[in-house]
Amino acid sequence: MFKINYSNIMQDIIGKNGLIANDFNNIDDGKIYKIILNRQYPELAFLDLPEQNTSEIKEIGKIARQFDNFLLLGIGGSALGPRSILESLSPFHNLHKKPKVFIYDNVDPMTLKAILEIIDLKKTFINVISKSGSTAETAVSFMILWQRLKDLGLSHDKHMVITTDPQKGNLRKIVSDYNLKSLPIHPDVVGRYSVLSPVGLLTAEVIGIDSDDLLRGAKEIGQRCKIARLWDNPAIFISSALYLLQVLRNRDITVMLPYSDRLKSFSEWFCQLWAESLGKQGRGLMPYPSVGTTDQHSQLQAWIEGLEKYVVIFISVDDYKADFEIPHIFNNIDGMSYLSGHSLSELIKTEQEATEIALSKKGKPSININIPRIDAYYLGQLFHFFSITTAMTGFLYDVNPFDQPGVEEGKDLTYGMMGKKGYEAKREEFLNYRKNKDKYII
Amino acid sequence: MFKINYSNIMQDIIGKNGLIANDFNNIDDGKIYKIILNRQYPELAFLDLPEQNTSEIKEIGKIARQFDNFLLLGIGGSALGPRSILESLSPFHNLHKKPKVFIYDNVDPMTLKAILEIIDLKKTFINVISKSGSTAETAVSFMILWQRLKDLGLSHDKHMVITTDPQKGNLRKIVSDYNLKSLPIHPDVVGRYSVLSPVGLLTAEVIGIDSDDLLRGAKEIGQRCKIARLWDNPAIFISSALYLLQVLRNRDITVMLPYSDRLKSFSEWFCQLWAESLGKQGRGLMPYPSVGTTDQHSQLQAWIEGLEKYVVIFISVDDYKADFEIPHIFNNIDGMSYLSGHSLSELIKTEQEATEIALSKKGKPSININIPRIDAYYLGQLFHFFSITTAMTGFLYDVNPFDQPGVEEGKDLTYGMMGKKGYEAKREEFLNYRKNKDKYII
Repeated sequence: MFKINYSNIMQDIIGKNGLIANDFNNIDDGKIYKIILNRQYPELAFLDLPEQNTSEIKEIGKIARQFDNFLLLGIGGSALGPRSILESLSPFHNLHKKPKVFIYDNVDPMTLKAILEIIDLKKTFINVISKSGSTAETAVSFMILWQRLKDLGLSHDKHMVITTDPQKGNLRKIVSDYNLKSLPIHPDVVGRYSVLSPVGLLTAEVIGIDSDDLLRGAKEIGQRCKIARLWDNPAIFISSALYLLQVLRNRDITVMLPYSDRLKSFSEWFCQLWAESLGKQGRGLMPYPSVGTTDQHSQLQAWIEGLEKYVVIFISVDDYKADFEIPHIFNNIDGMSYLSGHSLSELIKTEQEATEIALSKKGKPSININIPRIDAYYLGQLFHFFSITTAMTGFLYDVNPFDQPGVEEGKDLTYGMMGKKGYEAKREEFLNYRKNKDKYII
Repeated sequence: MFKINYSNIMQDIIGKNGLIANDFNNIDDGKIYKIILNRQYPELAFLDLPEQNTSEIKEIGKIARQFDNFLLLGIGGSALGPRSILESLSPFHNLHKKPKVFIYDNVDPMTLKAILEIIDLKKTFINVISKSGSTAETAVSFMILWQRLKDLGLSHDKHMVITTDPQKGNLRKIVSDYNLKSLPIHPDVVGRYSVLSPVGLLTAEVIGIDSDDLLRGAKEIGQRCKIARLWDNPAIFISSALYLLQVLRNRDITVMLPYSDRLKSFSEWFCQLWAESLGKQGRGLMPYPSVGTTDQHSQLQAWIEGLEKYVVIFISVDDYKADFEIPHIFNNIDGMSYLSGHSLSELIKTEQEATEIALSKKGKPSININIPRIDAYYLGQLFHFFSITTAMTGFLYDVNPFDQPGVEEGKDLTYGMMGKKGYEAKREEFLNYRKNKDKYII
């Protein structure tokens, strides 16, 4: 299991910005525990994902691996999880492995054009992902690709798998009308909590990762997060710490800072989970995606000397499974020779710790999550741990961590302009706003 | 020139969170103008970059283009600018173009291992970038690659160009000791303002972009930002608006939201510029990197219903230079058929505007920057405009937008542990901190 060191959020280490043990008495851990135990929200179904049977996913994975390209159509939770699995576990994948993986998670015509210029659809397997089956962006790219396959005389059944609700929705209807391959997303598992469902696991299988390894890791940490008492349950503890650092110390922003290029998209996965789950009722914590050492040369200045808003979550890695010795050269140059004889992994680990200390010395709170190595097992742990922690943080704020009511208005306005029935008034509203938008500086 | 619409920061459109025209009377635009005019900071030298002669860069670019791979070693400003040029102007570059471009901007041993497994150093041209020549991360990767070339019997002069200060620093000394190819970074142009110097322009040439096109765009917007009066100078106006939205309305976070996958790394380039320049003295504005439509399914919820902290800068695109019609299929499915006959570019543009309106209806401020298309000319405009705007925003906060004192402590602690002379006390301090870090939750 990974380790969590919380020294640098405590007052005896970082001074007045920190917490004292008694602060945690404000937290009703029993209440959180009961919400989980009683499955007070049906969406807590994601907790059972580690127990799922993966044989169907493996079967489709095997088919997909026979193609040269794997094209995923999905947005939000349907893309961020798969991308994180791809980039964490198979870096530079498309430059030396097959099938090449493309994740189209936008409606940017330039990107689609570029992808279609590179891949041959005859040799491409497409995974369409939308729980509801009504996500406009995914529907559109699906429709365009459907037509392309048809124009090329390619069978939809052979070239496509639809990952969607097992019973409901447009995509499920199409699966049944056209007798297509499909994978189910449990009706109660919402997008941003779905990485360990077929949504993420199929991509894992496609790139040659055993999806059961992800689930084994998730299962282990899941067990550990079933304990009632805050000081024994790492998820209740971390969610409480971040909650308290905001309500008592005004720390609004959670920076996710793994010291590994591979985990950059894990940061982005976390940011969706955190922002959509907690940004509600004019409150909540806000995320910031990051990566070390790189962001020491980009964001660190603001964390140290900017607004007193940040809490940094470091992810440190014990074994990078690769290393380089720094050679004994340029002995006549002081600014270089001191590095000789050290190794690259020694340097990245030292910089991680040095950054933690530098923050600590200035009284800035941080938490360290230490993973032994980056593999499917520990990535599964991280996914599941932060999913549980995010839900619990929502419960502490008394918000529903599974909905996203704020995004509906934009969708409705788009429906209006695209001519969806019943949204005629939204179209009027859209056009009126456009008229009033007349202030230009250049 | 691009257009800037500021309707959605004004009270008559968004209500009480907005500004009124009189608020801008608080700004001493004459003072800002004079700082620029008198070059009160030597680092304002970046303003002259559009006038530079690019012949030397073009010459090196021509040499680099004869190789199969181009490996850039640099971190922070030395990497974010080049990456933004690469990804904005040549998406999926490495899958269909040569030379393949690799930007190693970390000391992650896994990444270096992966790169060296993919590229053949015999067919690789290396660009080492560090203004000071003393950046530890870059020094280390430079030393490792230097030794590799030597072991393979490859000439450093043939396979390498060093981009650094024209006179000073370790790298300049090595250039002169070993008679290497080099490109100069003006001594007064600091890293994060250097994208339009040889730092970024060489990468442009390597991928087949005429660097003069970037400079022409920059020059045009540079001229426009030389006017004294706030209402006529878009850079003074935007920096003032963002400053006022923070000091009068508590809007701390500037979201950079281009509606184009290609500009995702432009967002990240902006975030370094903004964070390092403004995060000082316990104040300043904070950035958030984003991309549309994707982040409508990730961050939008928090901007609409989370903390009242955000100002969103939209970058909208007029002509995507690619399009797809949404076919007339699935006529029996209401949730899809309404999309038929529209185009992908119509959808992305409608979603951009709908998101702006949705924010506006909830009283959330945003600014729209509209570019005709994504090419070198307009990318040059964006780079130069935000560089100027960032510097000016620093002047409004009365902070030096060109230094980054907050990051020194972490560097010193790393020097201590790596055994650099004169940092022995830092080593002690590091080890003492480590001892006190003993609180584990798991």
